[in-house]
Amino acid sequence: MSEITNTFITLEEMEAATNRLLETAQKVGADTWQQRAKNQTPHCKFGEEGICCRICTMGPCRITPKAPRGICGCDRDGIVGRNYLKFTAGGAATHSDHGRSIAHTLYLAREDGDYKVTDAEKLKRIAKEWDIETEGRDIYDIAHEVAEVGLLEYGKPFGVQRFLKRAPEVRQKKWHDAEIEPRAIDREVSQSLHMTHMGCSSKAEALVRQSLRAGMSDGWGGSMMGTELSDVLFGTPKPVDTNANLGVMEEDMVNIVVHGHDPSLSEMVVFYAQDPEMVALAKEMGAKGINVCGVCCTANEVAMRHGIPMAGNFLSQENVVLTGACEAIVVDVQCIFPALGPLSKCFHTKFITTSPIAQMPDSEYIEFHEENAGANAKKIVEMAVRNFQNRNKELVHIPQLKTNATVGYSVEAIKKCLDGVTNSHVDEIGTLKPLVDAVRSGVLRGAVALVGCNNPRVRPDYSHIELMKKLIANDIICVVSGCSAQAAAKSGLLSKEAKNLCGEGLKRVCELVDIPPVLHMGSCVDISRMMVLVADLAKDWTEEIDISDLPVVGCAPEYMSEKAVSIGNYVVSTGITTFLGVNPYTKGGPGVEQWLQHDVEDWVGAHFEVELDMDKMCNRMMEVIEEKRTKLNI
Amino acid sequence: MSEITNTFITLEEMEAATNRLLETAQKVGADTWQQRAKNQTPHCKFGEEGICCRICTMGPCRITPKAPRGICGCDRDGIVGRNYLKFTAGGAATHSDHGRSIAHTLYLAREDGDYKVTDAEKLKRIAKEWDIETEGRDIYDIAHEVAEVGLLEYGKPFGVQRFLKRAPEVRQKKWHDAEIEPRAIDREVSQSLHMTHMGCSSKAEALVRQSLRAGMSDGWGGSMMGTELSDVLFGTPKPVDTNANLGVMEEDMVNIVVHGHDPSLSEMVVFYAQDPEMVALAKEMGAKGINVCGVCCTANEVAMRHGIPMAGNFLSQENVVLTGACEAIVVDVQCIFPALGPLSKCFHTKFITTSPIAQMPDSEYIEFHEENAGANAKKIVEMAVRNFQNRNKELVHIPQLKTNATVGYSVEAIKKCLDGVTNSHVDEIGTLKPLVDAVRSGVLRGAVALVGCNNPRVRPDYSHIELMKKLIANDIICVVSGCSAQAAAKSGLLSKEAKNLCGEGLKRVCELVDIPPVLHMGSCVDISRMMVLVADLAKDWTEEIDISDLPVVGCAPEYMSEKAVSIGNYVVSTGITTFLGVNPYTKGGPGVEQWLQHDVEDWVGAHFEVELDMDKMCNRMMEVIEEKRTKLNI
Repeated sequence: MSEITNTFITLEEMEAATNRLLETAQKVGADTWQQRAKNQTPHCKFGEEGICCRICTMGPCRITPKAPRGICGCDRDGIVGRNYLKFTAGGAATHSDHGRSIAHTLYLAREDGDYKVTDAEKLKRIAKEWDIETEGRDIYDIAHEVAEVGLLEYGKPFGVQRFLKRAPEVRQKKWHDAEIEPRAIDREVSQSLHMTHMGCSSKAEALVRQSLRAGMSDGWGGSMMGTELSDVLFGTPKPVDTNANLGVMEEDMVNIVVHGHDPSLSEMVVFYAQDPEMVALAKEMGAKGINVCGVCCTANEVAMRHGIPMAGNFLSQENVVLTGACEAIVVDVQCIFPALGPLSKCFHTKFITTSPIAQMPDSEYIEFHEENAGANAKKIVEMAVRNFQNRNKELVHIPQLKTNATVGYSVEAIKKCLDGVTNSHVDEIGTLKPLVDAVRSGVLRGAVALVGCNNPRVRPDYSHIELMKKLIANDIICVVSGCSAQAAAKSGLLSKEAKNLCGEGLKRVCELVDIPPVLHMGSCVDISRMMVLVADLAKDWTEEIDISDLPVVGCAPEYMSEKAVSIGNYVVSTGITTFLGVNPYTKGGPGVEQWLQHDVEDWVGAHFEVELDMDKMCNRMMEVIEEKRTKLNI
Repeated sequence: MSEITNTFITLEEMEAATNRLLETAQKVGADTWQQRAKNQTPHCKFGEEGICCRICTMGPCRITPKAPRGICGCDRDGIVGRNYLKFTAGGAATHSDHGRSIAHTLYLAREDGDYKVTDAEKLKRIAKEWDIETEGRDIYDIAHEVAEVGLLEYGKPFGVQRFLKRAPEVRQKKWHDAEIEPRAIDREVSQSLHMTHMGCSSKAEALVRQSLRAGMSDGWGGSMMGTELSDVLFGTPKPVDTNANLGVMEEDMVNIVVHGHDPSLSEMVVFYAQDPEMVALAKEMGAKGINVCGVCCTANEVAMRHGIPMAGNFLSQENVVLTGACEAIVVDVQCIFPALGPLSKCFHTKFITTSPIAQMPDSEYIEFHEENAGANAKKIVEMAVRNFQNRNKELVHIPQLKTNATVGYSVEAIKKCLDGVTNSHVDEIGTLKPLVDAVRSGVLRGAVALVGCNNPRVRPDYSHIELMKKLIANDIICVVSGCSAQAAAKSGLLSKEAKNLCGEGLKRVCELVDIPPVLHMGSCVDISRMMVLVADLAKDWTEEIDISDLPVVGCAPEYMSEKAVSIGNYVVSTGITTFLGVNPYTKGGPGVEQWLQHDVEDWVGAHFEVELDMDKMCNRMMEVIEEKRTKLNI
């Protein structure tokens, strides 16, 4: 690992480093996303506007002035609305299936197994919330019952999601009245596909409503399940120091990059990379040891629980291979470039797929189950270690860019930090009240949740980094997750040093509470943590208010995935106006846009705003925050 | 209703009738699918070949020789395979959600309610199959427990579908070995969306395998649930005489057209159309009475249980309005043209939508629930009746085309028919053994299941009708459902007179057993009946054989919907080679086509064949049947 760390790294420096890696790509004849994005431009206008329909084989149909309806008679809003709902359902299913996998892992946890209960206290808290007996019971009995009840949230024939009760009552009532309380998670997914089948719903209002409901089944259902039960299994995150950017890879060590989302795999890889037998083998192979680092959401998961360094985010995934120093890139599910297959063939790198959900050509497939987790993780680590000797030293180039970052601000951790500035003789501890006070007094103006991917459609990471800088300079605290969090990490914004970029108010808060101004809350499923945070904030207000009253907005400036759109739907449903920096394939449906960007306000007190100009977006976010403050008379 | 019925109606006669109705359309300035299909031609080549990807907002991406991979690196097979799996999941979710709705209706059935148990014997049979106690229990207690267990098939955390046990053991083992036994129905849908999320599966094999499994969750899960529990609620179909084609509409009566799929609505409409109060009101309005007729699968449902006449299939849905004599077209879910909204505005016709799943602009929305079914059905009937007086007589033209049809050949009914030719002193009754004997002796060469929609991509109904004629002439019995069944009905092929178009063997069978040579097995969910039929046939063979050994093939010559592709997947998985007359958007993925059209044979002993030339397809089907016979040494 580079000896020196940089306080801040500019986007230009990162881009220069990438350009150097692209030279290697050219040398070895490797394809990269930069080239493929060029090849795919210009994009199909019909697809971009959402007015292309392939839902049945009478088509495909496309809306034009001459053909304002598809063969079945569906108009542009029907087509756009269906595509939007299908997109959302894809995201909700994906996040939630991740949560299901974690619940299954918990179901199989054993005192003497590969997977154990780490946070028993949190487990008991969830059990109580779900009316599951905890007194005098073995912790694994409780774990298995919680897991089974959790799994039933995906398919129970009656009732709505259990976690909804975490919201302020006024918010729960809004959900009920708007008919967007999600029932069983998978049922909302299936119903979304039913509604978008040929000859079903074509009314924008109905399609948007179900998009919100499907999103809710993710954020207050499957994603929250993923977060909560991951904490039970692997520990609830607390602040931990780590490093970020490509310089975390080490020239003289075996580099194993973990990439994907479900921590069940990466936890095991991290464990076996520390196995003395494996470390000895690494030395035998001529390496100084084994270095695990992360990409994408997996990076967030293992960073916040083990301080594993973060090599990069979504669009950095090819870069780690292009360093020539990656012995293995080990992946589970989601956001994994199929390009890693052919790319890894240009190097010695092993591209190891592990999940039946994500099978790719040109990879080595080592199926990973809860039942064989330890054995297979060890096998993978060994494979990587033995591969060190195959490295072509001439191709090795690790950019010397590395920052410090403090990560792992779960809601529990934030409350713990705030306890540090609470006078426990006078005030209750374990609440968000100090934060409420800071916001009410105006020391903090409000908060922005920055989330989502990066995307070649815009200059990657630019919006994430520039928005955060401008917001913290204006005393607006940022909570971040996913690839947005890693953009922050790569540039140095997750370090406590970043207080020096803040306005006076936020700087003072950072010093007092000893936190960075940009708080790492985890991976993309962990946006559920943000939902719990705003729910608790509204409940801890001087008197309980609704979430939509808070001076808080959401922002996904560079998102690309179906999951991100699902997230947007639940964040808006939760009462948080959400800004998108990429068009969600809805421009061709003005009726749909009217609902998403305006009329849903009547249902949930929040809406979407799409703004491709980052300066305008930032100003508009600050405007919304100030409007909320005015309404609160603060 | 036209006094005269036609023995057979040619396609040319039907097309001439349609052309006359299109004149009316022109007169009133109405848009029709014929015009919209022209406007949408030529179709997008990328979409047609399945090589356009809109799964994330980095795109849309399209595969060309210059751009052989999407931005993420996904190749053509990955894109085609994902699109195919998403298409399948859409169909599986849709069919299954219909089944869920029926299970909910059963859950709410009451002795004194709108919905009652009609076939208690079948209910008990299912209860026994599911190990539910029946002895000494109230029939509604049993019904509610069966319904709840049925609903859990959608979401149970563990285990596979209960109905799989209906198949021969050798087939069950194949499903297990191929890893395509479906778990909870909705879970298979969600997992399909997870696998097709950006950065998940891009391997053709994995995507095709999950397509089969998702299809199986439909055919041996949700669709079978729909069929079985509909029979419990509304009665198991038995042969009943009815009429078909547009001439079933009556100039001097109130015409209510029921359209869609879920019989819960149409059953109630049929009931209240017979209500003396409503009939009296109709007379008051100047009509002779109330005539309910059906379109699409709803027509199949109410025809086979009540002898309600069938006005037409999918592409006839605009025609019923164009007669000018349709007081109301009442719809529930699926395959409903959004075009009916604007079209109905050109006439006095009320376009009444009833389901939250299928909300459309320009319709009157009367939400229909199990809880308010009777009241709302009556309201709808009254609305239609009162609308009679608004009819513009100058626009009325009902084509005088009407055939006889005998419909309602459930598996139970087929066995009953066969009992008639069984010597009950010697042989077991209630089996398919007489059919086995006829096939083994060569009197019947085999069977073809003809199913699916019609589609403007091909000459509508042509393939259905021509294939059936040729097949029965060659002593191949046809079992039909959905819009294929209605194509048969409209042309006269469901009448017993059609025996005269048969080869000598089949003709003799028709006479002996007193059946038509084309057996109406119901709606599209009722393809599950065909699955039970072939399973029982294999079990009733001289010694139990596998379904894939039977001289039987499946055929969807004009399909258009996601449901049809889901069906194709489960029919092939069941061991029946299936012929498609329309390309399933897979041409751009040779690797995917290799799996679907060849390699799945290794898993399930059957495969898809795509053949756009109907003569060639027919010959090829007969060839496959003869090959199967040869292998059986018969």
